[in-house]
Amino acid sequence: MQINKERLWDRVQHLGEIGQTDEGITRLAFSSENQRARNLVIKWMEDIGLKLREDEAGNIFGRYNGEVDNPVILTGSHLDTVINGGKFDGAAGVISSLECLQVMKENNIKPKFPIEIVIFVNEEGVRFPGGLMGSKAVTGLLDSDYPYKLKDRSGKTLAESMKKYWGRPDKIIEAKRKKGETKAFYELHVEQGRKLEQMNKPVGIVSAIAGPHQLELKILGEAGHAGTVPMEERKDPVLAFAYIRQKVEELIAKASSQIRGTVGYIEAFPGAHNVIPSKTIFTLDFRDINEKTRDSVIDNLKEYIDKLCHEKGLKYRLETTQKTSPVVIDKKVRELMVNEAENAGINYEIIPSWAAHDAMVMSNICKVGMIFIRSKEGRSHCPEEFSSKEDLSEGTNLLFNILCKEAT
Amino acid sequence: MQINKERLWDRVQHLGEIGQTDEGITRLAFSSENQRARNLVIKWMEDIGLKLREDEAGNIFGRYNGEVDNPVILTGSHLDTVINGGKFDGAAGVISSLECLQVMKENNIKPKFPIEIVIFVNEEGVRFPGGLMGSKAVTGLLDSDYPYKLKDRSGKTLAESMKKYWGRPDKIIEAKRKKGETKAFYELHVEQGRKLEQMNKPVGIVSAIAGPHQLELKILGEAGHAGTVPMEERKDPVLAFAYIRQKVEELIAKASSQIRGTVGYIEAFPGAHNVIPSKTIFTLDFRDINEKTRDSVIDNLKEYIDKLCHEKGLKYRLETTQKTSPVVIDKKVRELMVNEAENAGINYEIIPSWAAHDAMVMSNICKVGMIFIRSKEGRSHCPEEFSSKEDLSEGTNLLFNILCKEAT
Repeated sequence: MQINKERLWDRVQHLGEIGQTDEGITRLAFSSENQRARNLVIKWMEDIGLKLREDEAGNIFGRYNGEVDNPVILTGSHLDTVINGGKFDGAAGVISSLECLQVMKENNIKPKFPIEIVIFVNEEGVRFPGGLMGSKAVTGLLDSDYPYKLKDRSGKTLAESMKKYWGRPDKIIEAKRKKGETKAFYELHVEQGRKLEQMNKPVGIVSAIAGPHQLELKILGEAGHAGTVPMEERKDPVLAFAYIRQKVEELIAKASSQIRGTVGYIEAFPGAHNVIPSKTIFTLDFRDINEKTRDSVIDNLKEYIDKLCHEKGLKYRLETTQKTSPVVIDKKVRELMVNEAENAGINYEIIPSWAAHDAMVMSNICKVGMIFIRSKEGRSHCPEEFSSKEDLSEGTNLLFNILCKEAT
Repeated sequence: MQINKERLWDRVQHLGEIGQTDEGITRLAFSSENQRARNLVIKWMEDIGLKLREDEAGNIFGRYNGEVDNPVILTGSHLDTVINGGKFDGAAGVISSLECLQVMKENNIKPKFPIEIVIFVNEEGVRFPGGLMGSKAVTGLLDSDYPYKLKDRSGKTLAESMKKYWGRPDKIIEAKRKKGETKAFYELHVEQGRKLEQMNKPVGIVSAIAGPHQLELKILGEAGHAGTVPMEERKDPVLAFAYIRQKVEELIAKASSQIRGTVGYIEAFPGAHNVIPSKTIFTLDFRDINEKTRDSVIDNLKEYIDKLCHEKGLKYRLETTQKTSPVVIDKKVRELMVNEAENAGINYEIIPSWAAHDAMVMSNICKVGMIFIRSKEGRSHCPEEFSSKEDLSEGTNLLFNILCKEAT
């Protein structure tokens, strides 16, 4: 049995029209673009007769019944994107899951265990930081005040957006699933790196997922006129940023590890060319398969920041916005995945995931597996993000075989 | 004869209400706040019978007649502010000029030459960069396409704003005054530095004005996922910024000069915590009394930027947004000002101006003089900007005496 390559590809293209602009695809969580994408996939799920349910966090589940009612096998990903993102991140996982269930239906396959497609909300965490919100809700990692405390940069709460779009902010903790209820979660995703391309393989079986540790740093200095304040009297937070950004690079170079560090957002306030900034806000994002290395780099950086700000007369506030441990994929899951790939003659490679995924969070309540498909030039989170029709099809065939195996 | 200290102070306070927010005063050029400020001063000028005129750039002139029609003596400053600025920058110069003419009127003084208050538009150049727009128009430094080429960050042209608020974009070059028409321009302004405070003097007579050389740098790299792209494969423009900002500091420290360098604005695009930026835009602002030192620091920086971007595989575009030579105040003007201060028993100090002012631009068509008043802690371009009632009064008395002398 094979999945329908053309239908799969057409749906990815169709979905990719939603949120498309000249600079890429923008479907932020809790936006009308995100809503249109959800509605389209909901229609497709209804067309093949899946039973739909939305939980209190706004996650959508589309159920394909089994002989028994539980435990359930989950498969899926997310539909939100970053700003100016691509067609495949998240979408490929949702559409490939849908394709698998449609082929099961067409071939009248009746599994023992039910299989549910899941569309997790706010995986990217662009507007409302932290991300992975849907899987966190499902695994019970969100407090009841989470929607009321979490704000976007304009000060609006997540709860306001949930009320406008989907979910029930006052009941968010009820989205939690009990431990035995879920048998496994399988997620297909684009690799977002160059490994598969370098190794000339269409498909990856993920061995471990790097854990992100993200921070937001606000530094307060003293505004002043760009001409009149002598250099030695300045308290310039943007200059401090320059030192800190360089220190990040230095600490990473020193750590004998694959650790990655990024500043993706920075802003200076008030932000006029002739005013020494009074304030800067920027983000820090660190990731490693090795948690100890990752956190020791951050500890060293924190020491440096404290010393620097003290010396320069600056105040600062450092906040952890996300901190997740790396996940090593269960040996039995890996074996099952490898067997199914071998049996189906799929050309695979075992590789780690450097990006965080809902599968990482789901590992708190069930076994998880991830399938990667090759990314062109490793590009991702940008309009150039691309995976071929053939690679997407190969990955989906693997997912189909795994789901059939897991569900019997 | 003395100016009316209380009336002067009250008007500064009154004007300071316009554009006031929790974070300072914001009266950007071509905004409704700027318009309300103009309307208030226009009303005060009408109250004392000045003859009003608006030129093609939107500058306002309020004329106190002399025995002859020309040449005219100009005095004034500007009413626009930076974002979250203070009550005194610009406003003090306009209000003190008004006070001088009101005292002349009350004392029935009939000067030989007419005296005009001038309110220059867009001195700060926050939204529409470059600044000093009003004085540039008056001195013939603007081309006829200036209002159509100059855009704010959202892409709107200056011409659109001029049509909405004031001035005639299609006739801007007609704002130019002929050389012989203007006898002199005197501007009172807050020092915006600590020199007068350190020397315990209320008033400064300006010896020279530092020339600003401002640039905008756009660096283009490659967007990518914060986890999946290995450090050595990245083309990160924000990291390049960190090196460049530090190089600015290094070059300034090496130059045996008082040169100042500032990055007041920086932004990363797309600006998400989990995306390696594809682009950064930031401003550079350099100022010195010594033009050669200033420009040689910039030349060295340009070389560094070119080398760095070449090495890191980044593209860049460096644009000069403003470049003005420092101005040395004419010896005779300085003597006249010193004499008037001595005669009136005003405690003064001769100091340079590190900020650019309309007087700097006006030196292209007439002799110019500048009076500084003491700034508390040198703070400026921020809500803490403050000069005392007494110091403002002393400075205005000096301006009054100078105008009387110059006009007879």
